[in-house]
Amino acid sequence: MTEVEAKKPQESLQDRLAQVVELLHRHRLVEDLAHRQEGQHQERVENLVHRQNLVELQRKLEVLHPADVAHILEALPLDDRLTVWQLVKSERDGDILLEVSDAVRETLIADMDDHEILAAAKDLDADELADLAAELPRDVVHELMETLDAQQRERVRSALSYEEDQVGALMDFEMVTIREDVSLEVVLRYLRRLKELPGHTDKLFVVDYDGVLKGVLPIKRLLVNDPEKQVAEVMASDPVTFHPDEDAYEAAQAFERYDLVSTPVVDKSGKLIGRLTIDEMVDLIREESESEVLSMAGLREEEDIFASVWKSLRNRWAWLAVNLVTAFVASRVIGLFDGSIEKLVALAALMPIVAGIGGNSGNQTITMIVRAMALDQIGTGNSTRLLRKEAGVGLLNGLIWGGVIGLVVYWLYDSWSLGLVMTAAMTLNLLLAALMGVLIPMTLARLGRDPALGSSVMITAMTDSGGFFIFLGLATVFLL
Amino acid sequence: MTEVEAKKPQESLQDRLAQVVELLHRHRLVEDLAHRQEGQHQERVENLVHRQNLVELQRKLEVLHPADVAHILEALPLDDRLTVWQLVKSERDGDILLEVSDAVRETLIADMDDHEILAAAKDLDADELADLAAELPRDVVHELMETLDAQQRERVRSALSYEEDQVGALMDFEMVTIREDVSLEVVLRYLRRLKELPGHTDKLFVVDYDGVLKGVLPIKRLLVNDPEKQVAEVMASDPVTFHPDEDAYEAAQAFERYDLVSTPVVDKSGKLIGRLTIDEMVDLIREESESEVLSMAGLREEEDIFASVWKSLRNRWAWLAVNLVTAFVASRVIGLFDGSIEKLVALAALMPIVAGIGGNSGNQTITMIVRAMALDQIGTGNSTRLLRKEAGVGLLNGLIWGGVIGLVVYWLYDSWSLGLVMTAAMTLNLLLAALMGVLIPMTLARLGRDPALGSSVMITAMTDSGGFFIFLGLATVFLL
Repeated sequence: MTEVEAKKPQESLQDRLAQVVELLHRHRLVEDLAHRQEGQHQERVENLVHRQNLVELQRKLEVLHPADVAHILEALPLDDRLTVWQLVKSERDGDILLEVSDAVRETLIADMDDHEILAAAKDLDADELADLAAELPRDVVHELMETLDAQQRERVRSALSYEEDQVGALMDFEMVTIREDVSLEVVLRYLRRLKELPGHTDKLFVVDYDGVLKGVLPIKRLLVNDPEKQVAEVMASDPVTFHPDEDAYEAAQAFERYDLVSTPVVDKSGKLIGRLTIDEMVDLIREESESEVLSMAGLREEEDIFASVWKSLRNRWAWLAVNLVTAFVASRVIGLFDGSIEKLVALAALMPIVAGIGGNSGNQTITMIVRAMALDQIGTGNSTRLLRKEAGVGLLNGLIWGGVIGLVVYWLYDSWSLGLVMTAAMTLNLLLAALMGVLIPMTLARLGRDPALGSSVMITAMTDSGGFFIFLGLATVFLL
Repeated sequence: MTEVEAKKPQESLQDRLAQVVELLHRHRLVEDLAHRQEGQHQERVENLVHRQNLVELQRKLEVLHPADVAHILEALPLDDRLTVWQLVKSERDGDILLEVSDAVRETLIADMDDHEILAAAKDLDADELADLAAELPRDVVHELMETLDAQQRERVRSALSYEEDQVGALMDFEMVTIREDVSLEVVLRYLRRLKELPGHTDKLFVVDYDGVLKGVLPIKRLLVNDPEKQVAEVMASDPVTFHPDEDAYEAAQAFERYDLVSTPVVDKSGKLIGRLTIDEMVDLIREESESEVLSMAGLREEEDIFASVWKSLRNRWAWLAVNLVTAFVASRVIGLFDGSIEKLVALAALMPIVAGIGGNSGNQTITMIVRAMALDQIGTGNSTRLLRKEAGVGLLNGLIWGGVIGLVVYWLYDSWSLGLVMTAAMTLNLLLAALMGVLIPMTLARLGRDPALGSSVMITAMTDSGGFFIFLGLATVFLL
């Protein structure tokens, strides 16, 4: 796809969004009016105003970068989104589809007929096509493949053969390759013969006659070195490379650590087959952090903020159901101590404090741990140490805050024994929260699961049931 | 600072971390032995082994990229961290300090004397120096400034004059500038006279004699165009630029949207004063997402996973205290219904279910909203709509899951009226959770606060107190 040179936007994203919404509202108002007043003459006038609004909106959209149009589409409810989508010039559809999130893309594609989809996709590169393929109707994909030449078709197939989280699924094929036994002068002349260079070309890839990667020639070096020099003298011969079956997120971390802009992707035999670029990696870093936040709360990623109520229900269903079960367990734990509560009803009022502080503190711990795991900072060597530290924090917090609450309880209920039970229960529950906050994500990771997944629901379950049991148990033993 | 060309690492980060930990453990073991067996001969042997371990460790560290050393330092407890830090060759100290997180940097600098700090900082660029300055001892900063020339000193001062979240604090000064009235050939010759180009130079900045930015010349265009052409013919004259007082995170989002590698920074009069590069922006994107996760849980960013127990306590203190107050309020709400619970003790067992599900569901909503706000997807126009949607989800979830739980309660306690109260209370509390999940972050944002800050604690407070009040209130009115 040809690149669009980004221009300095005149207004902030928020302003532009507000303008589009304003125009859409005006458009809807006029539409409503036209529906209500059915007089012939009236209608024609309204139609004119109506069309004017849309034309103004269209003009606004035309000057926007595809990424900005994508942003506006994301921020609009479904009906407004489709109105805007229909106004966007069809030759930019492909670019915009690549920029929106999966959830929004689905709603846009559902609104297009096969012909429109074909038109949108026909200018895309092989890797871009592969990105969209999963969401396009089968027939359309088939037809698209027919229009490609053999090499392109092979590339789409190869990109599709990798999992979403593998390097192979994110690489593109826009590589500029050169030989090592030519002079920089020859390279410069060769480049000049190309109409344009692919985006993010900060290095050229040096390959031999079999296509095996010998090194990379950073453009920086090409520019500052004597043109008489050979490529082999100037190139970096041991560059960072990736295999197509490596984990894409690890590649993204390497981009971040080593400040890379592009890297070659090679197969097992060292043959150059594609490249990774920083823009894809930035998207990946963003997505990973987001899916971490969402999955801690027990949400999947596919929900856009204006998804239908029904879709949202399905997205949140699973963890709410889990939560229902755990809440029910906690309730049964309380049920065990029916008799104690009947005798001392203050217990009912105090038990949520123990559970609540435990949940909050456990969530703090688990958030820290999940984050450190995402950054690869937790290995085999340091987990005991971490456990000890978190237990220390939990113990001290328990003694301090449990002590405070114990005093308040003493003052309120005039019973030092109830105050002491409160302090002890809080301390024990904060210890439990600390241990579970470390152990739950570590166990999930050891089982090969995502350590963030529903971790917030699980830790709350532990500290609720645990808190009720500890507090009511202690009270039953020592107070009754 | 000279750039280190990143080489393909032989092992994964995890493996390298494990090896370092292994060597450190061996080193500690031998140290312990040496302490216990005080025999003269023994000691000499142990010392030898001991030194061998350290030498092996040092060799391992030497070949690592500064970013990798930084990663290892982050993942080690304080004592091990300082052992490794002392082994790292001092000329790399500056690079490594730039790569570690603020919390870890503080521990490393605390371990260095003024002389070492000076040595580490003397090769840094003005912008890098400014990044570190806040954490260095005053005397050292003063002494460092003395060694700089006037321009460099001015740059450090200017970088320090901006807030951490402004573009000015993140820009660097490594710009290659050219004039518009020369040919590309002249530009190429000019570049060849430079020893090297700054990292991330994907475009040259075209300025007039007053230093005012006229456009940018992408390197790609420089390479593919006829060298006879003038810069003015080839350059992009309306590039994306930033002002130093703009919000850095918005700049980062623009980098992400427009796939930028570098952009000029200009002052009010259009004069070129610096540039932003993608590597800084990636770090910022990462930090922003992290601080979002952490602040939702009521954590500040400054805690590294091996911070002392005392530091961790301080980090988590504030929100735990808030939580204590909110939990106490919830407890008082229950206290209002003492009499009802005494009459029907089942209420005590059931009330946490209402509160718990509400908290979980509220957290799901608030996570969605905070995320959408971070992505600028929520504006003035669409908040009512969002509120309506979330209320719809809450209502349906309440009716469905509340219905299920109502049936279970009927079956357990053999009371259809208790079951109905349960269903009604769950529905109302889920509605409350939905409304608060939307309104809390929006209100925070309208007050100019971070919408993520402690949002999880606040929503839980609402759904706890609210849940108890709704359930016990309904029960008191309809059951007793």
